[in-house]
Amino acid sequence: MKETGALDQLIRALAALPGLGPRSGRRIALHLLSNRDKAMDPLTSALTDAGQVVKTCTHCGNFDTGDPCTICRSDSRNRSVLCVVAQVSDLWAIERTGVYKGLYHCLGGVLSALNGMTPAQLRIDSLINKVREEGITEVILALSATVDGQTTAHYLTDRLQHDSSVRITRLAHGVPVGGELDHLDDGTIATALKSRAAL
Amino acid sequence: MKETGALDQLIRALAALPGLGPRSGRRIALHLLSNRDKAMDPLTSALTDAGQVVKTCTHCGNFDTGDPCTICRSDSRNRSVLCVVAQVSDLWAIERTGVYKGLYHCLGGVLSALNGMTPAQLRIDSLINKVREEGITEVILALSATVDGQTTAHYLTDRLQHDSSVRITRLAHGVPVGGELDHLDDGTIATALKSRAAL
Repeated sequence: MKETGALDQLIRALAALPGLGPRSGRRIALHLLSNRDKAMDPLTSALTDAGQVVKTCTHCGNFDTGDPCTICRSDSRNRSVLCVVAQVSDLWAIERTGVYKGLYHCLGGVLSALNGMTPAQLRIDSLINKVREEGITEVILALSATVDGQTTAHYLTDRLQHDSSVRITRLAHGVPVGGELDHLDDGTIATALKSRAAL
Repeated sequence: MKETGALDQLIRALAALPGLGPRSGRRIALHLLSNRDKAMDPLTSALTDAGQVVKTCTHCGNFDTGDPCTICRSDSRNRSVLCVVAQVSDLWAIERTGVYKGLYHCLGGVLSALNGMTPAQLRIDSLINKVREEGITEVILALSATVDGQTTAHYLTDRLQHDSSVRITRLAHGVPVGGELDHLDDGTIATALKSRAAL
C-alpha cells in the first residue's frame, strides 16, 4: 500500500488511540482527507487549542481550561464533601449524573501491585492534607468495585481514620438500574440482597 | 459536565469521526490529555503534516504525498490494465492484496438516485478519455455488489463500449474465502453454483 510518509504517520497515530486499530485508523484518515473543511481542519485546531489551553487542576486533578478548575472555583458547590475518584473519566461520569454537588479529588489511578502503582505515585498525600486542613466532613470513596479499587479504598480509609474523624462512605453496591438479574454475577446479587431497601 | 471551551470542542471533533461517538470521543480526549508526549503531540503533528503534504492524485484520485501518486508514477506497473474503484479505501484494499499490478481510477463514489450522485459528480469523463487515449486494453470494474455499485458498472460499460473496443471485466462473485455456506445469502450461493470451477 502506498501509505508513504505523512499519510502513514497519520494512520499510525490514529490507530494507536484507545478503541481504534489499523482498520479504523485507515477509515478515519480517509474520512479526514476527504472532508478537510468539515473534519480535518476542526480536529487539527481543536487538538492544537486543547494542547495549549487545557491544564490539570492542581487542586483536584481534573482537566480544565482554568487552574483551579471550574468545579474547584465554583461558589455553588458544597465544600465540606469530597468525592475521591481514580481517573478524570470517573469524575466526568459522576458530573454527568448532575446529582453530586460537592468537590472532587482525582487520585490519578489506583494502587496496584501488578502495574507497580504505589501510594507515592498517587495524589494521596494531598488528599490527606486537604481533608485535614479544608474542613471536609465527608469523604466519598467512589472507586471501582475491583480488587485494586477496593485495596485502594481500604488503604485510604486507614490513612484518613488515622489522623481525622472525617466520615468515610463508599458508593452503594447492588443491581445496576436497567440491569437484568440473570445476567448479574452471584456476588452482586448477594450484596444487593444483603443491602435490600424497604419499599 | 465541565467540558468547557477547548476541551468540549476536542471531544466533539473526535466524536464526529466515523465509528466514534460521544463516549469514545471523551475516552480518546482523556487519553490524549493524559499522554501528551506519546499520543497528543504525535497526532497533532501527523494531522498538520498530512493536511499540508497529502494531495489527491489528479490522474487516478488516490491520496498521496506526490501528484501523480506513487502508483501512477511507477515504472513497474502494467499501464494497459485499469482498475476502476468507487473510493480510495477500495483502492487501498486491493493494493493490500499485492495481487494487482495495473493502474487505478478512483470514481469518487457511485451513481445513486437516493444520494443525488449523478455522472457529472463522478470522475467518469476523465475515465473515458483515459481509456481512449492511453492504450488501455482492459478495464476491471471493481465496484461493490450493491444496487448502486452495479448500476454504476452498467452505466460505465455502456459508455466505454460506445466508443472503444476495450475489454471490460468485473470481480468474480462467489463464496468469500473463509466464509461459511449457511451464513451466506441465497443470491451469493446461487451465483457461486452457476460460476462453479473445475477442480
